[in-house]
Amino acid sequence: MTVWINRYSEERVRARERSAPADGPLAGVRFAVKDNLDVAGLPTTAACPALADRVAEADAEAVARLAAAGAVPVGKTNMDQFATGLVGTRSPYGACHSVFAADRVSGGSSSGSAVAVARGDVPLALGTDTAGSGRVPAAFNGIVGIKPTRGLVSTRGLLPACRSLDCVTAFTRTVAEGRTALRAMAGFDPGDPWSRAAPAVPPPGIAASLRIVAVPAGPLDLDPGHDAAWQAAVARARTVFDAVVEVDITPFLAAARLLYAGPWPAERFAAFGALLTPDGPHLDPTVRRIALAGRDVDGADVFAGLDRLAELRRATEPVWWEVDTLMLPVTPGHPTLAEVAADPVGVNARLGTYTNFVNLLDLAAVAVPAGTRADGLPFGVQFVAPAFADEPLLDAAARWCGEPCADPAPAPGRVLLAVAGAHLSGLPLNGQLLSFGARLHRRTRTAAGYRLFRLPGPGIPRPGLVAGGDGLAAGIAVEVWDVPEQGVGWLLSRIPAPLGLGRVTLADGTSVAGFVTVEGAVRDAEDVSRYGSWRRVLAAADGSPG
Amino acid sequence: MTVWINRYSEERVRARERSAPADGPLAGVRFAVKDNLDVAGLPTTAACPALADRVAEADAEAVARLAAAGAVPVGKTNMDQFATGLVGTRSPYGACHSVFAADRVSGGSSSGSAVAVARGDVPLALGTDTAGSGRVPAAFNGIVGIKPTRGLVSTRGLLPACRSLDCVTAFTRTVAEGRTALRAMAGFDPGDPWSRAAPAVPPPGIAASLRIVAVPAGPLDLDPGHDAAWQAAVARARTVFDAVVEVDITPFLAAARLLYAGPWPAERFAAFGALLTPDGPHLDPTVRRIALAGRDVDGADVFAGLDRLAELRRATEPVWWEVDTLMLPVTPGHPTLAEVAADPVGVNARLGTYTNFVNLLDLAAVAVPAGTRADGLPFGVQFVAPAFADEPLLDAAARWCGEPCADPAPAPGRVLLAVAGAHLSGLPLNGQLLSFGARLHRRTRTAAGYRLFRLPGPGIPRPGLVAGGDGLAAGIAVEVWDVPEQGVGWLLSRIPAPLGLGRVTLADGTSVAGFVTVEGAVRDAEDVSRYGSWRRVLAAADGSPG
Repeated sequence: MTVWINRYSEERVRARERSAPADGPLAGVRFAVKDNLDVAGLPTTAACPALADRVAEADAEAVARLAAAGAVPVGKTNMDQFATGLVGTRSPYGACHSVFAADRVSGGSSSGSAVAVARGDVPLALGTDTAGSGRVPAAFNGIVGIKPTRGLVSTRGLLPACRSLDCVTAFTRTVAEGRTALRAMAGFDPGDPWSRAAPAVPPPGIAASLRIVAVPAGPLDLDPGHDAAWQAAVARARTVFDAVVEVDITPFLAAARLLYAGPWPAERFAAFGALLTPDGPHLDPTVRRIALAGRDVDGADVFAGLDRLAELRRATEPVWWEVDTLMLPVTPGHPTLAEVAADPVGVNARLGTYTNFVNLLDLAAVAVPAGTRADGLPFGVQFVAPAFADEPLLDAAARWCGEPCADPAPAPGRVLLAVAGAHLSGLPLNGQLLSFGARLHRRTRTAAGYRLFRLPGPGIPRPGLVAGGDGLAAGIAVEVWDVPEQGVGWLLSRIPAPLGLGRVTLADGTSVAGFVTVEGAVRDAEDVSRYGSWRRVLAAADGSPG
Repeated sequence: MTVWINRYSEERVRARERSAPADGPLAGVRFAVKDNLDVAGLPTTAACPALADRVAEADAEAVARLAAAGAVPVGKTNMDQFATGLVGTRSPYGACHSVFAADRVSGGSSSGSAVAVARGDVPLALGTDTAGSGRVPAAFNGIVGIKPTRGLVSTRGLLPACRSLDCVTAFTRTVAEGRTALRAMAGFDPGDPWSRAAPAVPPPGIAASLRIVAVPAGPLDLDPGHDAAWQAAVARARTVFDAVVEVDITPFLAAARLLYAGPWPAERFAAFGALLTPDGPHLDPTVRRIALAGRDVDGADVFAGLDRLAELRRATEPVWWEVDTLMLPVTPGHPTLAEVAADPVGVNARLGTYTNFVNLLDLAAVAVPAGTRADGLPFGVQFVAPAFADEPLLDAAARWCGEPCADPAPAPGRVLLAVAGAHLSGLPLNGQLLSFGARLHRRTRTAAGYRLFRLPGPGIPRPGLVAGGDGLAAGIAVEVWDVPEQGVGWLLSRIPAPLGLGRVTLADGTSVAGFVTVEGAVRDAEDVSRYGSWRRVLAAADGSPG
């Protein structure tokens, strides 16, 4: 199979090696680059041979940043043409296949990059991801694929697929290697209109340590081999994380369908439509057909699609108040090359079921290996989280992979404080915590048996958390906040009786400071422990977002 | 002129009055509602008589929130049809004119609402603003028009013009009245896909007190009467604020042109195109022509337009690191009804020169009176600032209008600290301040004569600020941060010699804590005072955003 489209000569590699900083975090690491990203001195074909004489003068920004960290690009890899495909077969340079089986697709569009890492050509490769191109080939080749937050890594020097959605991704064998690469690449680039500065303080709702994992409620439409592997992965998640929660993923899947059934093909036509005529053997017929269909999309339908996407984003948001990350299979199955040849559009479309929504909904994702199926094929899951959760997401992925993962400890002068009521993220008093520089450390549950009461009284509804007794075995949902010590005094001066501050025992047996209820206060209060979380008590009471 | 399209009976007004909370912040305030926003029991026509039999069952969310604060809607006001126009003449119900002159347009599209407030029918009226419809009629009638951050006020119950851009606005005679109304209306609405939660902590770069005002560099294309009034306004700004800075507004004006010359008419077609056929006297011919043109926009051109907008937004961003608010005339002139009739599209388009970009670039704005022209017509300016700067923007507008405006003081346990170098917003060490909960209090200048040096040494470039001597009369740019006291200790333990903490005298003669340079440290350092700010020193050195 054709993994590489163009490579530097060994002499050229050595020259770049000599000019790279020897003390960088990636010193001496050789890496491959998907052929839609510029590498100085090599053409950027995007798997379109008609572009083979257009040699890039400079590295794409992501490549340049890796090189500045000491890494050395060695060549350009095969891909689904114009990054339009999830299969790895849509290339005039030839199809790739999974390193696990010659009859199974490699996944794409970053096919060559994933295979180059999986078979050991290089320890690091760059891909891109619009619909799943940085995750599907990772899953099909048993490696790690990091799809950062949109705009976190510059796309300057990328031949685009969908400018507003394209992300540069990293393939590695371990999460740790990928994290080093991502940290080297990430950073605001004023020269890229879609670049975004990561906020100095994480956005609301993003915990430092991700412990509560969502999985889809109800059965998924998976191939049999995939289904068994998925069930095993869910079981394993219960041992790796604090809790696994089922959520309705209907609006996520509806957003996924928008990418091709909605108006976004027009964005592909805007990006590379000019390269699609005249037709010829340099063009993949399926890619050409899809992108040319984008020519016929009405402008009004694009705006209607953006409006629909806004609705679906709104519908998905409540998930992120209750869970840290959504775990999903990367794909519903692992098709053969023959299956793709028989139905190139249909098989490809199904592959994107669980990946297509991620960039549309402005989420970050990491694809990680999750064992092998009974037939020996690799199985991959992805962890998905809101934009700018990249670092804690990599921690969660490392924990999943059994890599070292240090739990973040509060800095000197700061304490951990458990909250269970109106101070939870997004609830009315949460702004008090944010106002004195508190950070969400982790979502978790209390120890078994804690009870939750709705306290009578005026003002905003307040819960009372009471240790011991006959509460839920699963405990009550709490958020642990990392709080400056003097913030505790500030809070204490504002907490109305019968609430107070004391110790709260968590599901993992440790205890932290937290909100408690004083003796005798719950005699006239309603026991709402059955809801398991104050957020759900509120949602049941008034239909507000749960 | 037709100011009102439909009104409640006095009986109905009384009934709503009785059901309104008597102790709300707007108790007893009667208000008008632009006829594209639902008021229960009245039709929502958007100035299209064909819709006159569609009676709204419930109030639009913004109306409901005002009512919950004690205010009482009394009726629906005339407007440019489907909120497509800035003139106030595009209505089958008849044109409005300025309360200052019967031959001059009222401005639109929120024509009736502005006139209703200006002539004293009501003290408060709701408008909407996509291209400037909440500001132009304020300027043409000598009142205040508040155009909040996109999504801050729910648009549920609005017959849309451009869903992604539409904002609900308030017209009042004073900034204080408008602020009370905005506070009552603002708030996240999960039922509106475009609603946004205001961040608990202001976004980076937004100061609590806006003191540095930008005005366009170079001459503006203004009618003579407007030009003289504008020059007077700029002169006055120098007395009201700490500094007036000239900036290049070319990319702002380019974004403004995108709204009609770019693909956004397709968003109007998506929103109300179905109402444009069949044609008839119920449709304004100009509005119909503009929106039908949106039918012919290609989807690919929409995506290309979004990409171009991203480029222009990027190009405008550096402005907001150096200044707090951009002051502009609301319009280039004040046309007569006859001028509009002679060239309905051209005159209208010119009116949007300085307003069209605001929603596209995700900015907030307040239009305020700025005296009268020599011919007695009113002149209005607008203050424009980044999203979610609404509250400090209203403070700046109040200061401009001579209304009481308390300067925010640091809370107990917090101190003001002036920074002039790497701790400035967006520069490498700014995250240190954010990490312990510091907030930008204000941008200002040091007292006259301060000098700025580039200190020699390793690591990130650091400036030395030195009091006295022969520095610029305008002082050196500083940011004053509101810092928790223990953050000062944290900082002090990390400040490398020869920097230290001491007192810095500001342009207004007060002094605050701040970064100082110890004796003898600048002997070998380059004096870079001529740049006037560390940000400009860096920009001159490496072309980074200034």
